[in-house]
Amino acid sequence: MWRATILTIFPDMFPGPLGLSLAGKALKAGTWSLEPVDIRDFGIGAHRTVDDTPAGGGPGMVIKADVLAQAIDARAADPRPRLLMSPRGVPLTQHRVAGLAKGDGVVIVCGRFEGVDERLIAARGLEEVSIGDYVLSGGEIAALAVLDACVRLLPGVMGAETSGTEESFADGLLEYPQYTRPQVFEGRPIPDVLVSGDHAKVARWRREEAERLTRERRPDLWAAFGAKTPSPKKNHPKR
Amino acid sequence: MWRATILTIFPDMFPGPLGLSLAGKALKAGTWSLEPVDIRDFGIGAHRTVDDTPAGGGPGMVIKADVLAQAIDARAADPRPRLLMSPRGVPLTQHRVAGLAKGDGVVIVCGRFEGVDERLIAARGLEEVSIGDYVLSGGEIAALAVLDACVRLLPGVMGAETSGTEESFADGLLEYPQYTRPQVFEGRPIPDVLVSGDHAKVARWRREEAERLTRERRPDLWAAFGAKTPSPKKNHPKR
Repeated sequence: MWRATILTIFPDMFPGPLGLSLAGKALKAGTWSLEPVDIRDFGIGAHRTVDDTPAGGGPGMVIKADVLAQAIDARAADPRPRLLMSPRGVPLTQHRVAGLAKGDGVVIVCGRFEGVDERLIAARGLEEVSIGDYVLSGGEIAALAVLDACVRLLPGVMGAETSGTEESFADGLLEYPQYTRPQVFEGRPIPDVLVSGDHAKVARWRREEAERLTRERRPDLWAAFGAKTPSPKKNHPKR
Repeated sequence: MWRATILTIFPDMFPGPLGLSLAGKALKAGTWSLEPVDIRDFGIGAHRTVDDTPAGGGPGMVIKADVLAQAIDARAADPRPRLLMSPRGVPLTQHRVAGLAKGDGVVIVCGRFEGVDERLIAARGLEEVSIGDYVLSGGEIAALAVLDACVRLLPGVMGAETSGTEESFADGLLEYPQYTRPQVFEGRPIPDVLVSGDHAKVARWRREEAERLTRERRPDLWAAFGAKTPSPKKNHPKR
């Protein structure tokens, strides 16, 4: 069983959306487990204090190293990867998600306030991971994103029908456009090639559209794709 | 009031984590509103069908243009920006979040299955937005991330204490490391400069750490930062 342990001051946010749909079914089926750990259970004193003012001054509060260390040592001392969700982190990629899904599970620490004492990050080997270049009110929704992305890749969670082999990033390209009935929607027909019945033509059109979209929308991905996979077009410009 | 309308086949996923913490308090206070719209209410026939097989073949199901058009026309016909959460989209940035937070609200369509009929995206002016380069089981958790990022910026949601002016991306740099008591944690002291009481030194150290972290972890952000803001270090290498 793939085990997720989430350290948070909002344990009630879990499973949240992961209690429904694919992830929820897999949770009930025992494909994965989810243990939210309330950091406040390890807080100090009658008020279960978990944070304090930043050394050197400034706004906000910082989660205390000693409190978080106790929580990790008590509930997540095993060798699973330990992520700290943070906009300062390494950007999450589908490659990293696939790696996490192949392992035994994950420990995720959700930051709040102005962050977590830097010494704890080093002392407990937390890997700072970012889900994107924007700021959330805490790491909880970021943790939900990591878990959803991982769980759908666990064996048996997606049906064979939606195997994930033709989706965005699977081959370094964005996904091609999709169409379904009605044949004409508000005067717009489905492209002829898709209703031609010619499978080779359909495959070629989809590949070209995926390349076009990636080139237009994500020059960064397109450059990485070109470096990895020489495009037939580039090698045979007159084809 | 900042208004969010979410089109989804999992309306029960909302407000989810946004019912708690900062966003939850602001929701109860009427700073923003959240209306989940069940796409199935606009489905076709006794089974309220919302999807069909992809034209041209392939795995999975595609959300029908006609069904989604009806849902948008009935519940989100006003001029708010309309986002479609999709890994094919333009990457979300803090700049875009700030722009959305300044407006009247947002309409978010949550994709599922293999995606949404391309003709609907054009016909209803949906803007494809991605929260990062990984694949989720649907757009719902991505929508939660967009909403959380926007709502915390609405007037009055964050206290003056945590005004968001010194956080990651506010000035194009990742945030500097934070420390708090105890003074020594497992043999690791807080850096001397932060307990020196010299505010100018503290500010300089933080700036240098923010630059170092950005350079080391995010060469892409560092390049963009250097292009925008000539670094004092680059101009005065011996300083």
